[in-house]
Amino acid sequence: MTTPLQDRHVSLAHGNGGRLMRELIEHVFQRHLGNDVLDTAADASCLPATELSGDWMVTTDGFTVDPLEFPGGDIGSLCIHGTVNDLAVSGATPVYLTLNAFIEEGVPMDLLIRVVASMACACQECDVRIVAGDTKVLRRGQGGGIYFATTGIGIRPPGLNLGLDSLREGDELVVSGAVGDHGTAVLLAREQFGLSGDLISDAASVLPITRILCGLPGLKFMRDPTRGGLATVSHDIAKATGHTVRLQEAMIPVRDPVRSVCEILGYDPLYLASEGQVLAAFAPGEGSKAVQALHAAGYMEAAQIGRVEGEKALVVLETPIGGERVLNELENDPLPRIC
Amino acid sequence: MTTPLQDRHVSLAHGNGGRLMRELIEHVFQRHLGNDVLDTAADASCLPATELSGDWMVTTDGFTVDPLEFPGGDIGSLCIHGTVNDLAVSGATPVYLTLNAFIEEGVPMDLLIRVVASMACACQECDVRIVAGDTKVLRRGQGGGIYFATTGIGIRPPGLNLGLDSLREGDELVVSGAVGDHGTAVLLAREQFGLSGDLISDAASVLPITRILCGLPGLKFMRDPTRGGLATVSHDIAKATGHTVRLQEAMIPVRDPVRSVCEILGYDPLYLASEGQVLAAFAPGEGSKAVQALHAAGYMEAAQIGRVEGEKALVVLETPIGGERVLNELENDPLPRIC
Repeated sequence: MTTPLQDRHVSLAHGNGGRLMRELIEHVFQRHLGNDVLDTAADASCLPATELSGDWMVTTDGFTVDPLEFPGGDIGSLCIHGTVNDLAVSGATPVYLTLNAFIEEGVPMDLLIRVVASMACACQECDVRIVAGDTKVLRRGQGGGIYFATTGIGIRPPGLNLGLDSLREGDELVVSGAVGDHGTAVLLAREQFGLSGDLISDAASVLPITRILCGLPGLKFMRDPTRGGLATVSHDIAKATGHTVRLQEAMIPVRDPVRSVCEILGYDPLYLASEGQVLAAFAPGEGSKAVQALHAAGYMEAAQIGRVEGEKALVVLETPIGGERVLNELENDPLPRIC
Repeated sequence: MTTPLQDRHVSLAHGNGGRLMRELIEHVFQRHLGNDVLDTAADASCLPATELSGDWMVTTDGFTVDPLEFPGGDIGSLCIHGTVNDLAVSGATPVYLTLNAFIEEGVPMDLLIRVVASMACACQECDVRIVAGDTKVLRRGQGGGIYFATTGIGIRPPGLNLGLDSLREGDELVVSGAVGDHGTAVLLAREQFGLSGDLISDAASVLPITRILCGLPGLKFMRDPTRGGLATVSHDIAKATGHTVRLQEAMIPVRDPVRSVCEILGYDPLYLASEGQVLAAFAPGEGSKAVQALHAAGYMEAAQIGRVEGEKALVVLETPIGGERVLNELENDPLPRIC
């Protein structure tokens, strides 16, 4: 053991390649995230072969959430779950991650340590290892506290091909649980709105959900409705298929506190991020069986919420009283830095 | 073809998952960086098998250079070359990259397009493909223009094990060319210093150099002396071996303009970044042959600059007049946001 970190805040010298940077890496990143593949003294890490067979899948994501800690998570757990989830919804098992940290000068060391420790817990829970990393320190005023970028590498079983291009008219849409919790929880955590509540983010690994769905017949596509929410994934489907996505408002699970906050502030929960849910598309007739399977596994809010049906590439919401409303593609950002 | 980008500056809406973001990705990133593996509509990309055999190697790096464009390169080419180089010095052939872009609201679209086009050129030159990406837009005042994070995946031939842990007393240190050019060129490009000059950054792929060195007997370790420069890599060697790194000042190639700028501003070129050079360690007696091989390939400034020799884990510079000076580990950052 060398001397423990003496500094209470991150300084520019923690990013210059010298002694303080080495200490930061050893005492914060290596201490919490260390494993037998990660070699913080090497330029590149060698990936051991895994017992899994299939195709190597890669994804990458950046995280800029404000505030850095919010009810139900923080930027550390969020970046692990988010990257794990991008692999999970592609049908893959996540194995390795890389991590880039952009840390603003002046960030309290305690906060950084909490966030990295939370990241370590999420890695353990998802059974993934961080195998390479890099840290840059940004001058005060040139960053929003902490930004992370994570790249995930996983393995997808042979023959499992999920994707927007396999969707057809008649396919059925299933959501694993209530939407908009993450966006609303982060929003409430921002003092500027002057609201409070006990809603917590749903941010979590969706691997338990995707493992169930991958075993079901007729699965064609999965996505976690993060930035832009359920409405944005629906637009992706409409654009890819050239058909209308018809959603039934009464079937879409939205929790009461999410609904209340949205009503007060004028947001639509269908555009707010979830970070622990999956929207899945199934071949005609298979959606209700998927809902049953999710219910049986304890995902009691899972529901079939719509289908791909109609000529135009639109997203249409059928209201409970029999009306229809076109959900436009997101234009202006209602909530930047949500994930 | 959908409508071309109408906006002259990047706005928050370019990062929200909606229409403008899709247009930005299609018209800037996909247009310049598109290839048959990259699928900007998917959560994860499937990596095709390569003809190369060996171990999969992974590296990751963040880039925050200020100014974003500098003589000899820009943040786009720099991030490709930097990540390619981390794989190259580990003995690997780079194959796939992932890209995270953090773009500050207000960045001119023209600048972003130039930088992404420059990235595309560097990818082509290095024969690598960007296979996954993500974009986040930062609020004005919460970013330094553009930050990139890139993860590189490559393949290292079977049996090639380079690393700090293979170094021993007596090993010889060879540098491929003049040091400090990148750091000095970026420094001159910052108007705050009121200096000008025609020095250009050495930022480039070091693959042509590492391919030569990998074919030579006795190669033990390679590194590109970026952040913290030659002195910092020397410290890494001293720390890893527990022995002194003795450098001969007269043998270290430093260009005259670099020397002049450093004298005026009080910097030491041995601590300034190079982005296109390699420091390599060879078994005793093999260093001079490596220098000959580099000279024969046109790297005329290549030189044997020192050796691992002595009890204490120090870096010692032998001066031309027979004196000695201990090079301390970098403490305060002389030049933040250099790479």
